[in-house]
Amino acid sequence: MAASGIRGTFIDFTDDPWRHVGAEQEATRFHLDGLLVTEDGVIVDFGSHDEVAPRHPGLSVTEIPDRLLLPGFIDGHIHVAQTRVLGAYGEQLLPWLQKWVFPEEHRYSDPDYARAGTTRFFDNLLASGTTTCQAFTTADPDFTRIVFEEAARRNMRIITGVTAIDQHAPEWFTGTPEEFYAAATELIAEFHGVGRALYAITPRFAYGASAELLETCGRLRAEHPEVWVHTHISENPSEVHGVLALHEDCTDYLGVYEKYGLVGPRFTGGHGVWLSDDELTRMSRAGAAVTFCPCSNLYLGSGLFRLGAVTDPDRRVLTSFGTDMGGGNRFSMLNVLEDAYKVGMLNNTLLDGSVDPSKQNLAEAERNKLSPYRAFYAITRGSAEALYIDDKVGSFDVGREADLVALDWRGGPPATAWHASLSVGDAAPQTLEQAAELLFSIMMVGDERAVAETWVAGERAYHRDAR
Amino acid sequence: MAASGIRGTFIDFTDDPWRHVGAEQEATRFHLDGLLVTEDGVIVDFGSHDEVAPRHPGLSVTEIPDRLLLPGFIDGHIHVAQTRVLGAYGEQLLPWLQKWVFPEEHRYSDPDYARAGTTRFFDNLLASGTTTCQAFTTADPDFTRIVFEEAARRNMRIITGVTAIDQHAPEWFTGTPEEFYAAATELIAEFHGVGRALYAITPRFAYGASAELLETCGRLRAEHPEVWVHTHISENPSEVHGVLALHEDCTDYLGVYEKYGLVGPRFTGGHGVWLSDDELTRMSRAGAAVTFCPCSNLYLGSGLFRLGAVTDPDRRVLTSFGTDMGGGNRFSMLNVLEDAYKVGMLNNTLLDGSVDPSKQNLAEAERNKLSPYRAFYAITRGSAEALYIDDKVGSFDVGREADLVALDWRGGPPATAWHASLSVGDAAPQTLEQAAELLFSIMMVGDERAVAETWVAGERAYHRDAR
Repeated sequence: MAASGIRGTFIDFTDDPWRHVGAEQEATRFHLDGLLVTEDGVIVDFGSHDEVAPRHPGLSVTEIPDRLLLPGFIDGHIHVAQTRVLGAYGEQLLPWLQKWVFPEEHRYSDPDYARAGTTRFFDNLLASGTTTCQAFTTADPDFTRIVFEEAARRNMRIITGVTAIDQHAPEWFTGTPEEFYAAATELIAEFHGVGRALYAITPRFAYGASAELLETCGRLRAEHPEVWVHTHISENPSEVHGVLALHEDCTDYLGVYEKYGLVGPRFTGGHGVWLSDDELTRMSRAGAAVTFCPCSNLYLGSGLFRLGAVTDPDRRVLTSFGTDMGGGNRFSMLNVLEDAYKVGMLNNTLLDGSVDPSKQNLAEAERNKLSPYRAFYAITRGSAEALYIDDKVGSFDVGREADLVALDWRGGPPATAWHASLSVGDAAPQTLEQAAELLFSIMMVGDERAVAETWVAGERAYHRDAR
Repeated sequence: MAASGIRGTFIDFTDDPWRHVGAEQEATRFHLDGLLVTEDGVIVDFGSHDEVAPRHPGLSVTEIPDRLLLPGFIDGHIHVAQTRVLGAYGEQLLPWLQKWVFPEEHRYSDPDYARAGTTRFFDNLLASGTTTCQAFTTADPDFTRIVFEEAARRNMRIITGVTAIDQHAPEWFTGTPEEFYAAATELIAEFHGVGRALYAITPRFAYGASAELLETCGRLRAEHPEVWVHTHISENPSEVHGVLALHEDCTDYLGVYEKYGLVGPRFTGGHGVWLSDDELTRMSRAGAAVTFCPCSNLYLGSGLFRLGAVTDPDRRVLTSFGTDMGGGNRFSMLNVLEDAYKVGMLNNTLLDGSVDPSKQNLAEAERNKLSPYRAFYAITRGSAEALYIDDKVGSFDVGREADLVALDWRGGPPATAWHASLSVGDAAPQTLEQAAELLFSIMMVGDERAVAETWVAGERAYHRDAR
């Protein structure tokens, strides 16, 4: 296939902005007039238009003016089968699962319903600018197969796998360790590394898994060291107590997953709201990741994720951001950034010494402030690093897959456009600083209406104004 | 003017749902096929269509099918001159005021800018379904006059007044007590009780007022017992410490306003995040009100408003809800409900005993759960009661002004419609329970895109689909 180009104003990240306190723009790459060249869905050249264009005479170029072009967003933790129940009233985690989630997910055992729901899921992702996700399905291998197929049909990168759960759920919702082992083994062979799909061994959470089922997960991990592991961890205090009551030989929640050999690179635990300092240190050393899901943590009242603790340079924990839709009430990673900013600011106040001087920690307080640099890094390159797919997506580096989102800083509620005009009037941004101000406005004042276009593997997959 | 009617599905509240724990529908009035009759902007008859229609032969009726019709929303605490800076990055309260707010508000001393900004302000309110607000202007009497005039032009109910601030702000932003007294006296005479306007004596906050200025406010209050008082209270812990350092004879923040004779019926303190139990008890006894502004409290990291404490039946504090735009990052009271629900759920977890058994308080935990009944009561009749205007707005009782909002449960992000279909499929709600499920969906999954029409004093003032 012939190369083609996209011309516009590009922003991506070359490093972790939390490593550049006070100079976050050093972690950022900005081309006011940039050119991205793709071939077969992969980025083959990138830079300023003046520098790149002469290398590609006769290139067919799509111009996307008046937009900010960023790598496609990455959702580190989402549930395909909860598309319809997002934001259902109104409980903490464990009763909410019983009342709303398990019954809805069970409907996906009907393949027609599963196909229709999965289509809606991907439509919502693309309308939100999300091009990659690490997703839960259910314990049903047929539904899991549909998710892989529908992702492949859209050529979207996905990490997923059949769910392991054998207790603390309705009987019709669970499966045996043997069933899980057989299904996972088959699906790994069929889908892992095929196209843009990656397989994750997916115990739902320690509370829903017997020792035998967790052993089975560990066995799969040993047999398939190349695959991913995705689960939940320390979301809600009652859940933590419940897990520890089931595993009396473990002193903390992470210890359960460690015991069964699951913690290491390509391990993600969703949430981690109540992880202790010691657990964070062990995750950091192991190269394991956590997903910050603020919409969900607030919606279910789970608690305040310690953003300034996971970004401690002495103990950096790989951190993706996620909607956790439907525990999260929004599909858009922009809303995730909005709520992440709010969680960070609450933490900031709790750590600045004004409430309790003995809790003052100004460095951690500062790390809780989600600047636009930190924010958009977190949902692009940062999440890619946490998911160990930064060699594939998350930036405009040559060799990466050409997923991108075109953001319109005037899109959103009626108040958005005049607010954005504070930074740039009626014009487009001319500097990185102006662009960063607009990105902050998009995440705090706008919403997915700011997503004008979403491109997947070099092809336009969503156009807001064509709907 | 001849009477006219509106026919559709109506929901409003006849009592405080927090008084009906477990049976909140008893506080709710629901007419699946209702008829509201208005004349000269006032409700003259209301009930089921079959009962009301025969009393009004030949009535001209507007049918609004496929919508939920509620009283217009009331925003208890909002800043007109912050319309453009909502969601500006990114500090806690005091530095945020200095960096963003004071400079922007100062621009409103230009009457052209003030007129244009005020127009945008009201356009945003109406597009959000908000028909009444209690608003801050600035210390500029000319701008304050413009706000009264623009509200009158739209025939909207408003409570506002010139702001008193004489310290801890740039010199060009403050005024002397004498200037404030003269301006307030003149504006009270000119606007209070004229049309739908009410006047509020408006000290910005105790931190920004000298003892002399607060004395002046108290003198105005004594001279004009018929007017309102609107200010800020206990928003941020550093602010609380600062206020107490200025007023060494007061043991808490409320005590400052008490000392100057400002606390009583028609007093509102915005925020009140850090009010003590004792302060809440004194406010309850005094008939004074607080405004819960969750978008702002989260955005500025102010803290978690104690929703379950102010709704304690032994010490109920009158509570309006507000955006606090631009400290709040959204104009829509639906987003306020979203964030209020999240704050309530965080409080719920902190009070359920799972984190700290010694803090367990299950009754207060329960009162933090913002059901759709509590939520929509809070932004209609509840806020009207807190503002002492429930004889004028907030319900469909005969004699009230005919402000209403028509909600479309399919409006919002792309995920909204399928979510709403969980309750009613492709049909409209037939029962109050279904309608309440849709209202919850509107506040947690939707946004101001659910506002299909806004009516002010019996006239349609906003139509989403006519834009």
